[in-house]
Amino acid sequence: MKIAMAQLNYHIGHFEHNMNKMLEAAAKAKAQGADIVVFGELAVTGYPPRDFLEFDDFIQQSELVIQKLAAAAQGIAIVVGAPCRNPKPEGKDLYNSAYFLYEGKTLHIQHKALLPTYDVFDEYRYFEPANEFKVLEFKGKRIALSVCEDIWNVGNENPLYTICPLDEMKGQNPDFILNLSASPFSYEHAKNRVHVLKANVSRYGVPMFYVNHVGSQTEIIFDGGSIVMSPDGNVFDEMPYFQESLRTYDLDEVSKGGINKEQTRNKIALIHDALVMGIRDYFGKLGLKSAILGLSGGIDSAVVAVLAQRALGSENVRVLLMPSQFSSDHSINDARKLAHNINIQYDLVFIEDIFKSYEAVLKPHFVGTPFNITEENLQARIRGMLLMAMSNKFGNILLNTSNKSEVAVGYGTLYGDMAGGLSVIGDVYKMEVYELARYMNKDSEVIPENILVKAPSAELRPDQKDSDSLPPYEILDQILYQYIEKRQGPRELVKMGFDEALVRKVLRMVNINEFKRAQMAPVLRVSSKCFGMGRRMPIVGKYLG
Amino acid sequence: MKIAMAQLNYHIGHFEHNMNKMLEAAAKAKAQGADIVVFGELAVTGYPPRDFLEFDDFIQQSELVIQKLAAAAQGIAIVVGAPCRNPKPEGKDLYNSAYFLYEGKTLHIQHKALLPTYDVFDEYRYFEPANEFKVLEFKGKRIALSVCEDIWNVGNENPLYTICPLDEMKGQNPDFILNLSASPFSYEHAKNRVHVLKANVSRYGVPMFYVNHVGSQTEIIFDGGSIVMSPDGNVFDEMPYFQESLRTYDLDEVSKGGINKEQTRNKIALIHDALVMGIRDYFGKLGLKSAILGLSGGIDSAVVAVLAQRALGSENVRVLLMPSQFSSDHSINDARKLAHNINIQYDLVFIEDIFKSYEAVLKPHFVGTPFNITEENLQARIRGMLLMAMSNKFGNILLNTSNKSEVAVGYGTLYGDMAGGLSVIGDVYKMEVYELARYMNKDSEVIPENILVKAPSAELRPDQKDSDSLPPYEILDQILYQYIEKRQGPRELVKMGFDEALVRKVLRMVNINEFKRAQMAPVLRVSSKCFGMGRRMPIVGKYLG
Repeated sequence: MKIAMAQLNYHIGHFEHNMNKMLEAAAKAKAQGADIVVFGELAVTGYPPRDFLEFDDFIQQSELVIQKLAAAAQGIAIVVGAPCRNPKPEGKDLYNSAYFLYEGKTLHIQHKALLPTYDVFDEYRYFEPANEFKVLEFKGKRIALSVCEDIWNVGNENPLYTICPLDEMKGQNPDFILNLSASPFSYEHAKNRVHVLKANVSRYGVPMFYVNHVGSQTEIIFDGGSIVMSPDGNVFDEMPYFQESLRTYDLDEVSKGGINKEQTRNKIALIHDALVMGIRDYFGKLGLKSAILGLSGGIDSAVVAVLAQRALGSENVRVLLMPSQFSSDHSINDARKLAHNINIQYDLVFIEDIFKSYEAVLKPHFVGTPFNITEENLQARIRGMLLMAMSNKFGNILLNTSNKSEVAVGYGTLYGDMAGGLSVIGDVYKMEVYELARYMNKDSEVIPENILVKAPSAELRPDQKDSDSLPPYEILDQILYQYIEKRQGPRELVKMGFDEALVRKVLRMVNINEFKRAQMAPVLRVSSKCFGMGRRMPIVGKYLG
Repeated sequence: MKIAMAQLNYHIGHFEHNMNKMLEAAAKAKAQGADIVVFGELAVTGYPPRDFLEFDDFIQQSELVIQKLAAAAQGIAIVVGAPCRNPKPEGKDLYNSAYFLYEGKTLHIQHKALLPTYDVFDEYRYFEPANEFKVLEFKGKRIALSVCEDIWNVGNENPLYTICPLDEMKGQNPDFILNLSASPFSYEHAKNRVHVLKANVSRYGVPMFYVNHVGSQTEIIFDGGSIVMSPDGNVFDEMPYFQESLRTYDLDEVSKGGINKEQTRNKIALIHDALVMGIRDYFGKLGLKSAILGLSGGIDSAVVAVLAQRALGSENVRVLLMPSQFSSDHSINDARKLAHNINIQYDLVFIEDIFKSYEAVLKPHFVGTPFNITEENLQARIRGMLLMAMSNKFGNILLNTSNKSEVAVGYGTLYGDMAGGLSVIGDVYKMEVYELARYMNKDSEVIPENILVKAPSAELRPDQKDSDSLPPYEILDQILYQYIEKRQGPRELVKMGFDEALVRKVLRMVNINEFKRAQMAPVLRVSSKCFGMGRRMPIVGKYLG
């Protein structure tokens, strides 16, 4: 038996697009001699469809696609994820299901039992968990269908769920397992996937075909990396990261095992490629072409400019250099040099006159008050407004350039440098931004070396340095990582050796700046805990604030 | 037996504050002769604690409060909601539980079984559902403890869950039911509560004591309205809305029934009071005092100014009048008159010079382009920036004045009139804003009549009217309500008699503007479907967009 895996880039709610993609892949798979072609979880709707699932009309559209795919499944079975209505009045109205379609019919439906409801996942919001588990027979083979999370309760010491769905099918002696996934990227996730699949084949002793999505949906990035695993725990094949792919496998070959094609992975390279795809898909799926951003001469905007240029092409990235009286000469020169290096259009806009016009208007109201954060924010907001004006006039989307460290502690101006339609590096800590820059420069100098070596500064008052307000990023980033990604509290952090006063200060900064993040653009997610939909905090909360 | 119900205003994560409030109430209840005092769901942590629940340190703090409350429960039992650790490695790590504390001990813990995970609720994100249900005996009475949603699966035709937890206790013959709730306000919710409680007493035949929170937590408003229901389905008492309250009831009296104290409710009065409390608590819980907003002379900012003045006092509300060359004389006069009526400080700031300074800087880049939405947005953003500058300089929080109709269709400028720390009327449709204004004027003219009668206009270009870009609000609001609150799709809307082209246009406007709402301030929730955490839509989604 031959099984084709189709790792595709879907578009949420774009039923025709998704269907045509799958029809094309099914035809190719058939030409490759496949008996079955497998697509991802909720491939019909795209993942995550979120509250669109609450619209009856949306579900009807999905059902129509299933009918058409079933009709097209001639000479090849199509296995595909889509919502399925719950016929009972009790419980949620939908299941998250894998459909097995063949020659105009739905031969089998397996609902998902384990509904991830943590981090960016909200599945119990929409779906009823399965309580029936049946192996299906096709062309003499017994197939266990499973959906994503259903294989993830195996191989960990503090399992989130009280059952393992495949345990319920084990007694029905499946010959192999198909898993339809939509498992978002984070820089450690590909490694975790292999770990979990190994745990599964070791428990069930049969080959596994794990099909993931590729492509990004707003902030959520799918890296692909679909896996065929032999019963001996070897990775028979791992599909490429960040690319669509269709490959057909012979079940007998997979069952033999002994071949290991697990890819090597480099954290920073993965993040780089994820962000490039994240930008490209955000624009592509919104039907937009070009980006704009402010180039300050600092590391953050430099890295974002390069990512944007790699995602959209030089002709589709435009930058503004917006010096003020506090900008240093090297800032403008460094920015200009970078723009030359990556061959993008840049314009110089001086903000001092606009700043003075605000000062004049505000003067009678500000009598007797000193220059302070207000005036710093004004400068950042003038820049934000100029970028938005260009964006409105020419239809290019403003990319936000805030990094995760500053977003975490609120070192940024709402409606100023925090503006933008998409936050590109809001899930990348400052020290990782440097690593990204060095990675970009690995073959030749793309980002001018001076940008990499000078001390970070917002340049909003004379001789300002980030280190005036913040602890050194080497330490700050570690505390933030432990607090945000690892959910370590103040006592645990002190136990790790961080200074108590510093820990209290940093945690307080994180918590009291929740209001700023609440108004931030979606952040491309590359870590296991990204600001936005995956991290939900009360704004008026008083804990550690 | 005497039962005290304490309807209190908690603060998320402010353990000491919540504990002291409860200790004080317990002492008062004891003085009133109560045998038991009942607090709300997760009263120890405040509701919803959201991802703070993922921090071990946070749970430890909560456990400490439970210990102290138990120690203080001398001569009176304390029934209180708090998280409880799940001792088993399988499943989520916490339960959402009702603790029965007496004389230093925890006599009983009942976990919650039905975990609301829809709209603003994310409980399955954190909690394992209960699977044990036991009635507790105290002073000769058999008591069924339940937490919020556990009573909501009764009395509806399409129940969300497959079990009713109290069915499991029915055989244990409880004498009465305590329900610890944190059930957010919407203008129809108090009515629904009474309906559900009636269904419960009709099913179980015993008195019910339903204790709710009061007060707001960022966007979520708790209205109180705790209910004592007699077995005959009469509302023995309904506690006040939007106020803390502590009352003690004699179980025998409640059991007799025959008394109905259900309050009358007026939708607009409820919304008014909810918004006033929403503003007051947002400021109070953040430790802030004063607000600023722009007064345009239109109805939206007028209503928000009055709400703010009623919440914070005249001395804590300041407004800017920011006319441009496109502003009509009546706008300034109406705004000024309103400021006088409610006795708040106002300042006049002209934006034309600042606008010109932007034009001058942008001119070389805008050569050959006509005046368009860019220049309209610029004006809105200059106003937003001036308000933020005042906010930064004087520490007053900018209130956003966008209404739900314009937020829905994206008729507003990101970082301009969409700026602000809290959206006050973002869940109030334009026609409802008028009703609110008329309600405010019921005793005397607070909002100048001219504001109520003139045609709505953004005044960003000559002779602009909202009706140039939008359908009449009478029709727009109906379509929006059916689409947003009632989840009706395009076909259902057309069936209702709305023009098909108009329906397509409006739904498209709603969907393509998701990116704007994603960056909006939290919106005080007064309807059953408010933008923000309760409505989760993909930005790059292509459905109806």
